[in-house]
Amino acid sequence: MLKNVAVVGASGVVGREFLKLVQQRRFPAEKLTLLASKRSAGTTFEVGDTTLEVRETSADLLREASLVFFSAGASVSHEFAPIVVEAGGVVVDNSSAYRMDASVPLVIPEINPEDIQRHNGIIANPNCTTIMLLMAVGPIHRAFPVKRIVVSTYQAASGAGIAAMEELRQQSLDTLEGRELKPDAFQHPIAFNLFTHDSAIAENGYNGEENKVVNETRKILHDPNFPVAVTCVRVPIIRAHSESVNLEFHEPVSPEAIREVLSASPGVRVVDDRKANHFPMPIEASDIDDVLVGRIRQDMSRPDGTGIELFLSGDQIRKGAALNAIQIAEHLAGVTASA
Amino acid sequence: MLKNVAVVGASGVVGREFLKLVQQRRFPAEKLTLLASKRSAGTTFEVGDTTLEVRETSADLLREASLVFFSAGASVSHEFAPIVVEAGGVVVDNSSAYRMDASVPLVIPEINPEDIQRHNGIIANPNCTTIMLLMAVGPIHRAFPVKRIVVSTYQAASGAGIAAMEELRQQSLDTLEGRELKPDAFQHPIAFNLFTHDSAIAENGYNGEENKVVNETRKILHDPNFPVAVTCVRVPIIRAHSESVNLEFHEPVSPEAIREVLSASPGVRVVDDRKANHFPMPIEASDIDDVLVGRIRQDMSRPDGTGIELFLSGDQIRKGAALNAIQIAEHLAGVTASA
Repeated sequence: MLKNVAVVGASGVVGREFLKLVQQRRFPAEKLTLLASKRSAGTTFEVGDTTLEVRETSADLLREASLVFFSAGASVSHEFAPIVVEAGGVVVDNSSAYRMDASVPLVIPEINPEDIQRHNGIIANPNCTTIMLLMAVGPIHRAFPVKRIVVSTYQAASGAGIAAMEELRQQSLDTLEGRELKPDAFQHPIAFNLFTHDSAIAENGYNGEENKVVNETRKILHDPNFPVAVTCVRVPIIRAHSESVNLEFHEPVSPEAIREVLSASPGVRVVDDRKANHFPMPIEASDIDDVLVGRIRQDMSRPDGTGIELFLSGDQIRKGAALNAIQIAEHLAGVTASA
Repeated sequence: MLKNVAVVGASGVVGREFLKLVQQRRFPAEKLTLLASKRSAGTTFEVGDTTLEVRETSADLLREASLVFFSAGASVSHEFAPIVVEAGGVVVDNSSAYRMDASVPLVIPEINPEDIQRHNGIIANPNCTTIMLLMAVGPIHRAFPVKRIVVSTYQAASGAGIAAMEELRQQSLDTLEGRELKPDAFQHPIAFNLFTHDSAIAENGYNGEENKVVNETRKILHDPNFPVAVTCVRVPIIRAHSESVNLEFHEPVSPEAIREVLSASPGVRVVDDRKANHFPMPIEASDIDDVLVGRIRQDMSRPDGTGIELFLSGDQIRKGAALNAIQIAEHLAGVTASA
């Protein structure tokens, strides 16, 4: 049982989901402390039978916490995570602040749980797109070493927060009723439109999101040069990400073998009904824990049988963020309990 | 000047665009005959200063036409195209009926105009997704031979006709106002959702649309084994398709060289402003002739420099169908005039 679990960013879309999961999964916490920016302080949330008030994030409150979940952006994590660690607490960080820090494990519990053990107070939650991708590719790679990944994403508005989800709804209505659009959360209109991810373009021509997918995949697979080509695209979907994945292998591999591996993978549900034309879709992936994987087929462009294509959808807020973080925390709680 | 140009499927979304282009481009036709199913007969359209009435498609009317544009599905083309040819007319067919017929040229005028010459009365218009793809890849392949294409699509509702476009609008409104959705034009809900293309899955695991892209690309590039891996996805967009394209080359090639080739390609507009994060988007590709191409960058997964990634958007109804067809007809008119 953990004494005091604090949630920084409790009023955000991921923070709220985290609180929901704390109840649903009966997370073993004696006390919950909800923290956020000054602007959100005073908001209340029902957690189980109790009403909890959000308080402004402060060093004093954080020093009292045994485990802190951060989901308030990289700068907040940079400012406050070291304070938690110094006071003896453990941080599960959903921001990008520490993901590529060599001393910080980057963990998807179904894929590399062993990395949790070597933490020094901070464990990073990967980017949502990376989590979805590796939930499918991780177990495949273990069974049949993957040589190269080419992936194109279909990312929901939720990745940019509550305001972005609301902007998609409002702009859709504005479009349908002939009103002018006023983009705010996103640079470009999102209603009935799509655009490659709005993060800044780096020197290598990849945008921030794409570089995260490349670098985080390499770190999680413990292969610093693992070849990943990725294009991240924002689509007018509320809360589930999808990905079109092309895999190259060193040896020929059959769709049946891949289907078998995925069917036995925790956190993955194979949705691959060719007759009914029923495959992973965001509306069916929303509000569930599992990542849906389907369209598993031989890549016709590699007649030697060394290519597989698949398509997946997963809840960006849940497995892409809050669920993965609470799973890490559960591992930690288990470790603490058995220690 | 062509004596009598008939449009079969005149009341459909592509037929209507074709009529618009006939006026805009001052297509040299003495007479226009609008044809459609019995259900649409009697509808009228303003073409220039005249009001034209849609008549039911019949062998007698088609025998009088010198050039017939078909966009009413494969079965209508199969039934009526041979009648036109037998009477000495020429068919430009937008359906899939004759695309893979060895005696029928499959033409994108910017890419393989020379194939028009060898027609035997029928010239096929490629699938919209193939056209968009090859508008970018065709000129690149001419300059730097492409070894393999991996493409994932983001296809608009328009590809499934007027009813599908209306279904997207109506379902979006229904979702926002909390009403139940009743999918009809598409099997699955399209509002705030996406799904891999709803065409039937073939023996090889690819769906109908994906097999079209593979086979048509091979035919247009005159390379019966050209390697194409493709995943076709329907997204909640009104009328422009987008594609995320990964290209492998035999030799290293730079993004600058690709940008130069595309900048000089007719029908292509490079939209590739990294600083402003401004790249091809469906809302900017709609209602224009050019296919927008951007995100041109080195593929990081191929450190030997033999990979390029790019993203494109193009109007599915226009260059993906009606414009390409009228360009073919213009070539024919030119051929007729100079013969």
